[in-house]
Amino acid sequence: MQDIHMLLRQHRSIRSFSNEHVTDDDVEDIVISAQCASTSSHIQATTVIRVRDTDSLKQIAEAANNQRQITEAPVFLVWCADMHRIGLACEMAEGDMISGMTEQFISTTVDVALAAQNAVIAAEGMGLGVCYIGAIRNNPQVVTEILELPKHVYPVFGLCIGHPAEDPETKPRLPVKLILKEERYDDHNDRELIADYDETMNNYYQKRTNTKKVSTWSKEMARRYESERRPHMRDFLRNRGFEMR
Amino acid sequence: MQDIHMLLRQHRSIRSFSNEHVTDDDVEDIVISAQCASTSSHIQATTVIRVRDTDSLKQIAEAANNQRQITEAPVFLVWCADMHRIGLACEMAEGDMISGMTEQFISTTVDVALAAQNAVIAAEGMGLGVCYIGAIRNNPQVVTEILELPKHVYPVFGLCIGHPAEDPETKPRLPVKLILKEERYDDHNDRELIADYDETMNNYYQKRTNTKKVSTWSKEMARRYESERRPHMRDFLRNRGFEMR
Repeated sequence: MQDIHMLLRQHRSIRSFSNEHVTDDDVEDIVISAQCASTSSHIQATTVIRVRDTDSLKQIAEAANNQRQITEAPVFLVWCADMHRIGLACEMAEGDMISGMTEQFISTTVDVALAAQNAVIAAEGMGLGVCYIGAIRNNPQVVTEILELPKHVYPVFGLCIGHPAEDPETKPRLPVKLILKEERYDDHNDRELIADYDETMNNYYQKRTNTKKVSTWSKEMARRYESERRPHMRDFLRNRGFEMR
Repeated sequence: MQDIHMLLRQHRSIRSFSNEHVTDDDVEDIVISAQCASTSSHIQATTVIRVRDTDSLKQIAEAANNQRQITEAPVFLVWCADMHRIGLACEMAEGDMISGMTEQFISTTVDVALAAQNAVIAAEGMGLGVCYIGAIRNNPQVVTEILELPKHVYPVFGLCIGHPAEDPETKPRLPVKLILKEERYDDHNDRELIADYDETMNNYYQKRTNTKKVSTWSKEMARRYESERRPHMRDFLRNRGFEMR
């Protein structure tokens, strides 16, 4: 299935969409494909909320760094890690759900990500373009209120879907030698490989911005990690029933 | 691309593999496809460690609920969330990496899951079968020691890959109506939908076990969540530099 490998490798985020319609059936198809991903002990901890209401979309976009593709994409989905439904199931089976464990946070979050990535492949396989919106975690409380999320549900990320109105280049990835290791974590060549990649990314940034952006992967990482990003997440999650015990 | 939707929907875990070889090039191809998944602000926080050593595999299998597919699969990969490499990059750019934030834990864990799911699709597209091994989190300290993982790296899950020597049925998923919601989290029909699904799963279990297993999804969830699963995860992560601040 060579075309599947091609499809996976052609991925790039699409932030500009044409007016062409995406049908409700298409969205349902995409979500059904998402559900077919592996799920830890069959917990199926993913809930997807489709937001169409203009005001809701506007408020979510404002909460998420004003990313205009949230209001402009034909389809905007919020992917939630959901232990509320598991709680319902436990009640129905006359059991008590223990909540707040770190392990539950990991397994539900991973569940959502596996499902969403299946959705992305399904959508791209239909010729659609997508863009994940991690920035809904900039203000997850606003998103939680708009979507009326019950306790034990948290919004992991958004996903814009639509027909692409742009055709950006794919972004170079780290050398596979850096990513794929044998037997143990050996990093003695890693600085050298990162330095090579920094060169690649510098060329990429310059080409993409008409030489205006001069940066490297290392510099971007240092810029990103020198300050506390989204420091509210711990308390937000704790309030939502993910105490990380 | 109808065949991509077919591929996604035919997914089931494969736990029994033929002796047919998977080449090193195949594995590299799979990991390169994995890298093409979206990554939060290009952090590329995934490291994959291939374990071939018989003793290491045996120890990992013992730590992971004795799942025999770990030692029997032609390929066994451990997928790690890696902030150590980002730390190296920060040093190279003369920056100081802030670590231990809950948000970093989320973004790196999501990064790994998105990449791994791409790997799964790539492998299945080549006719291979896979099985995620979340049970490496049963004893993540042992896995960490065998793989000599540095601080700020944690093993999220394992993945077995090989040519299938079995052809199990796909496992029924929750009704899409339960998963895909409109505008807000409305659960007033959820008990009814879960009850329907419990019926479906009871039929599935009975058929698969020659009527020996009588259970439902709700019962399985209650069984799973009535006790503290992997309560060591918080302290393990804290010791590895994921303090969840």
